[in-house]
Amino acid sequence: MIVVMEHGVHQEKLEKVVDFLKSRGFSLHISQGIERTIIGVLGDKTQKENLALEALDGVEKVVAIITPYKLASREFRNTDTVIKIGDVTIGGQELQVMAGPCAVESREQILETAEIIKKGGAKIMRGGAYKPRTSPYAFQGLEEKGLEYLAEAREKTGLLIVSEVMDTRSVEVVANYVDILQVGARNMQNFPLLKEVGKSSKPIVLKRGLSATIEEWIMAAEYILAAGNHQVILCERGIRTFETYTRNTLDLSVVPIIKHLTHLPIIVDPSHATGKWRLVNPMAKAAIAAGADGLIIEVHPDPKEALCDGPQSLMPEKYFQLMGELEQVANVMGRTLQGTLHFDKTGTEG
Amino acid sequence: MIVVMEHGVHQEKLEKVVDFLKSRGFSLHISQGIERTIIGVLGDKTQKENLALEALDGVEKVVAIITPYKLASREFRNTDTVIKIGDVTIGGQELQVMAGPCAVESREQILETAEIIKKGGAKIMRGGAYKPRTSPYAFQGLEEKGLEYLAEAREKTGLLIVSEVMDTRSVEVVANYVDILQVGARNMQNFPLLKEVGKSSKPIVLKRGLSATIEEWIMAAEYILAAGNHQVILCERGIRTFETYTRNTLDLSVVPIIKHLTHLPIIVDPSHATGKWRLVNPMAKAAIAAGADGLIIEVHPDPKEALCDGPQSLMPEKYFQLMGELEQVANVMGRTLQGTLHFDKTGTEG
Amino acid sequence: MIVVMEHGVHQEKLEKVVDFLKSRGFSLHISQGIERTIIGVLGDKTQKENLALEALDGVEKVVAIITPYKLASREFRNTDTVIKIGDVTIGGQELQVMAGPCAVESREQILETAEIIKKGGAKIMRGGAYKPRTSPYAFQGLEEKGLEYLAEAREKTGLLIVSEVMDTRSVEVVANYVDILQVGARNMQNFPLLKEVGKSSKPIVLKRGLSATIEEWIMAAEYILAAGNHQVILCERGIRTFETYTRNTLDLSVVPIIKHLTHLPIIVDPSHATGKWRLVNPMAKAAIAAGADGLIIEVHPDPKEALCDGPQSLMPEKYFQLMGELEQVANVMGRTLQGTLHFDKTGTEG
Amino acid sequence: MIVVMEHGVHQEKLEKVVDFLKSRGFSLHISQGIERTIIGVLGDKTQKENLALEALDGVEKVVAIITPYKLASREFRNTDTVIKIGDVTIGGQELQVMAGPCAVESREQILETAEIIKKGGAKIMRGGAYKPRTSPYAFQGLEEKGLEYLAEAREKTGLLIVSEVMDTRSVEVVANYVDILQVGARNMQNFPLLKEVGKSSKPIVLKRGLSATIEEWIMAAEYILAAGNHQVILCERGIRTFETYTRNTLDLSVVPIIKHLTHLPIIVDPSHATGKWRLVNPMAKAAIAAGADGLIIEVHPDPKEALCDGPQSLMPEKYFQLMGELEQVANVMGRTLQGTLHFDKTGTEG
Repeated sequence: MIVVMEHGVHQEKLEKVVDFLKSRGFSLHISQGIERTIIGVLGDKTQKENLALEALDGVEKVVAIITPYKLASREFRNTDTVIKIGDVTIGGQELQVMAGPCAVESREQILETAEIIKKGGAKIMRGGAYKPRTSPYAFQGLEEKGLEYLAEAREKTGLLIVSEVMDTRSVEVVANYVDILQVGARNMQNFPLLKEVGKSSKPIVLKRGLSATIEEWIMAAEYILAAGNHQVILCERGIRTFETYTRNTLDLSVVPIIKHLTHLPIIVDPSHATGKWRLVNPMAKAAIAAGADGLIIEVHPDPKEALCDGPQSLMPEKYFQLMGELEQVANVMGRTLQGTLHFDKTGTEG
Repeated sequence: MIVVMEHGVHQEKLEKVVDFLKSRGFSLHISQGIERTIIGVLGDKTQKENLALEALDGVEKVVAIITPYKLASREFRNTDTVIKIGDVTIGGQELQVMAGPCAVESREQILETAEIIKKGGAKIMRGGAYKPRTSPYAFQGLEEKGLEYLAEAREKTGLLIVSEVMDTRSVEVVANYVDILQVGARNMQNFPLLKEVGKSSKPIVLKRGLSATIEEWIMAAEYILAAGNHQVILCERGIRTFETYTRNTLDLSVVPIIKHLTHLPIIVDPSHATGKWRLVNPMAKAAIAAGADGLIIEVHPDPKEALCDGPQSLMPEKYFQLMGELEQVANVMGRTLQGTLHFDKTGTEG
Repeated sequence: MIVVMEHGVHQEKLEKVVDFLKSRGFSLHISQGIERTIIGVLGDKTQKENLALEALDGVEKVVAIITPYKLASREFRNTDTVIKIGDVTIGGQELQVMAGPCAVESREQILETAEIIKKGGAKIMRGGAYKPRTSPYAFQGLEEKGLEYLAEAREKTGLLIVSEVMDTRSVEVVANYVDILQVGARNMQNFPLLKEVGKSSKPIVLKRGLSATIEEWIMAAEYILAAGNHQVILCERGIRTFETYTRNTLDLSVVPIIKHLTHLPIIVDPSHATGKWRLVNPMAKAAIAAGADGLIIEVHPDPKEALCDGPQSLMPEKYFQLMGELEQVANVMGRTLQGTLHFDKTGTEG
Repeated sequence: MIVVMEHGVHQEKLEKVVDFLKSRGFSLHISQGIERTIIGVLGDKTQKENLALEALDGVEKVVAIITPYKLASREFRNTDTVIKIGDVTIGGQELQVMAGPCAVESREQILETAEIIKKGGAKIMRGGAYKPRTSPYAFQGLEEKGLEYLAEAREKTGLLIVSEVMDTRSVEVVANYVDILQVGARNMQNFPLLKEVGKSSKPIVLKRGLSATIEEWIMAAEYILAAGNHQVILCERGIRTFETYTRNTLDLSVVPIIKHLTHLPIIVDPSHATGKWRLVNPMAKAAIAAGADGLIIEVHPDPKEALCDGPQSLMPEKYFQLMGELEQVANVMGRTLQGTLHFDKTGTEG
């Protein structure tokens, strides 16, 4: 930590700050330049958390030097975290696509979609049983009934299931049905929820908050890691900016940044990021070219009838086409999209 | 709802959209201009929620005409909501200041601060027992013990208590101790929590999310109202922008906007918005001049030792000074800050 | 400047950075902590501008310590800059309102508006002769003819004139007609223009760019100061955020911040910031309560016919009412709005 | 244009709005729903530009239906614009990379860099002779001398030259030396400059403003097109968001959006967008995968000595490596990066 004193600070004020820091057990390096006096503060970083040095007279600003996360950092663990669920790996050489509808709407819809997903080659199916909706009057999800349908789809197809959990009280029930728990963007800093999923044995997809900085996002992952669950998959899904043409602005630069700063896998959700199905294909390819470990793609057998997020859902044939194109980009990146071995030209007739 | 078709759309595509809308029971007004064909869609608005018309071929965009909130709107209720808790009113002619520390740190700190708050003239004390902290390694709050201290402070001073609730599982316990529940910025779209506090009989301070639009914020209030709790106080606490000098950017224009669109009271938290105690005084006065119904102000007897948010906390004498200045601005606005009757010149010796 | 090296950096890389810095003539303080090695760099700051230390292997980040502006800073000049034009002062005890239409539309419109402005008590009239319009097909301004009308209005009313200059080639002609030159938000980093107005003897209103940080804004002022013109008036006019209800988000916290960091006067333009006339009155009062030295207010005799910015323009009676209310807020702030002495109750009949 | 009236608007106010619109020669469609009365306004769109209907009593909002740009739109021209300069095409099947240093620093630096650029296979060299710098004390460019060096580099290598113009007064001199004029992000809404380059016969690279919406960006292109220059190349270079880890947030979704809305070529500048050389390679590949027509890449023989933007400049060997990788991504996209034919394995020894 670096404490920058105000220009021309009185010696007395400087000494008060120095005494305060020493009283807290820090070692100090004081450097008196012509323009500013600077105090370098050395010592245990967690202790520093509670210091409010800007509240002291004469302090201009405090600059943190060390990243506040530990378990998520490359410094803590230099090799990439690869999450294994049965035969499926996330964060390894094979890319994973999590495909499916925004919401579980009915048993038929889920079983039909599961066959489409499987045919296209993805190995993981997404579908929301508890839906975070902006309006209290909008469809809120089928809840446990929806989870049952997802579990049935898994039995029939062998697809893994990922689904969102929104409430600390539902973590257990959702974890009973699914293979991967998702914490949504609006809950990225729902700290009780992070602690609760941190106690789960299931891997967690942690979506980036709408206006979360990269550091805050990693700190949210740190909550889960610190609670004992080391299987965290970060998911970029667009951030909120001034641009209104897209629903959010997909920030693909986080892919190499997360790889640089942490050892965790990162996937990208171009459907929620853009809000427009036309943009899903190019952004999915761009995400893979940027180095992502996988994708979340919304697929719906009949988008115009979807109970949520229809405008950004791919029709089956667009999904099949995308999977074929993604495999080529994956190969250029030295990755595989093994699932596409199940894909053949008749797929477009689905 | 207005559906704008693409330029030069084929008649066939247009008919498909028209048929789809008719099949859903809407009345349509079709207007064929030179540049675009536009379809006006009339009918029950809640039904429209689930339409994904952008998913249909030939549709360029869909423009919503009606605001999605109902109970919160001026159209639903034209007179201002005034919340009464004993003798204290929020949203009426008297302004209310909710003052106190970021976190409950100890019994002594809370009792000492309560006396300061009361002396300055505020009638409501704030203090966090459950703290949403970016880092899992930071002080997380005293939890129920903290609530007990707050309740003790109320007994000794007669101040009302407002405190944050973060978890659906804690709503009941927090409501047992406090007079007003606060839903924090990071939980503004924690929908299970909104539903849960919507069942409470206590008034709710609903802070604006870091990147919540005004409409999303009102929709969050609508969740609480729709669940049966009509005592919602909106609180502007700064939004996230590109500017890094302040912690957030205080958006005071929402004060007259909320007054125009809704009947709910609105207060402003300049402490969290700016993150710097120097800015609290001018921004508090500006908030009142903009028409706010009250303020949340962080006050700490020794900010440098505060376990959280010290840099933005006012020392007691700064708080006393602010209360005096606020009363003058309040009077110019035709409002009172009645509490300041308890304030006299010896206050600055506190 | 502080150079933070990567965690566990090799001694060799550290030495390369040290050697490079020494070769450039800097004194260094090296501090080897457990987590990071940090290099404090002392020396002439302007020289540092061109160092690209992040390009060196092993460097994690570089933290600037000293503000990059000099002439604009409180350190350079501790007393407030007060600009005098005849009897009018900007930045002193008296607040100044610059009122008038977005654009000069005709001789009649300008002469009529000037009488209204004068009647309301403002001493400075605004009006654009060269208009920065988003569309090439929109009204672009009357150019020199518009300046002539403004000059005529000054002769008839004694009002001072402020008008925007957009092109280096027009600085001279605009300066010939007006008392204050305005550099618009879109030109805040038009560096050739800043240099050119820096050579003028006329005061400059420098609007904050749509997405300019406070530091960038002060640096833009520094360009003008460095070119020799010390009469710079900063003007907050809203920044671009995700919120779409208002045209921009008015950031009033910059008022006390600019006062803290610089010695320059700061005024606020609530009309452009909000884009809605209903919000102009409350935001104008809030700006004064926050400590602003003045305001820019759009006033138009017939807003619906205005060639630009009608929706945010005040009708004459709303302007008269605002001036009356502002005087009261000014008085609470220990300021005057002397012009309002010319204002009486018949004003509302204008 | 759709005019939405306030809820429960009085008939009298509605009639005033209707009369006003009719007096301006518009055809109207009035649709009286239960919740709102809506007026559809038909007629010549350019005329609508100056209406300030929100200034009328009873009007809630005005919704534009038609995009304000014309010449840039797909509706105006359905086939892609392909710009030809000698043998080089921009916007066609071949991708173009514009590589080189941020600033022209010396004759030696430019001639050396030109050889590197050519060796790597790019066909266009970038280099700034007039530099927009945040600080007036920073290196401002070599001006015409710099242009001479660039022209010399062209003669020696056959590379085309692109360089920025910042001032209406310099358009002619810059155009005399270079093949492509660049309008920088900070000048995207410098309308006099847009008009001036619109008169030039040279193609224009138009960078997106730091906080420009897609529509504003296209409108800036429209200024150039409307002035007669149809050779506009749009360049995404990152937008300003709350995230501070990167210099800007690269918004790759604009690539397919611009292709959808306009017929103009679009290229991407990952160097300025990210501000970090480590991120240039993945973001360059992602841009091509998203469908971009080319890239601007900063390359410097010795980044740590660069007079500007060193931290984001690639060393020669990183540039050679990138060109090889880009070719593979280009091929997957059905594009070529023909220049790389000049690239062989000895390139990495450069």
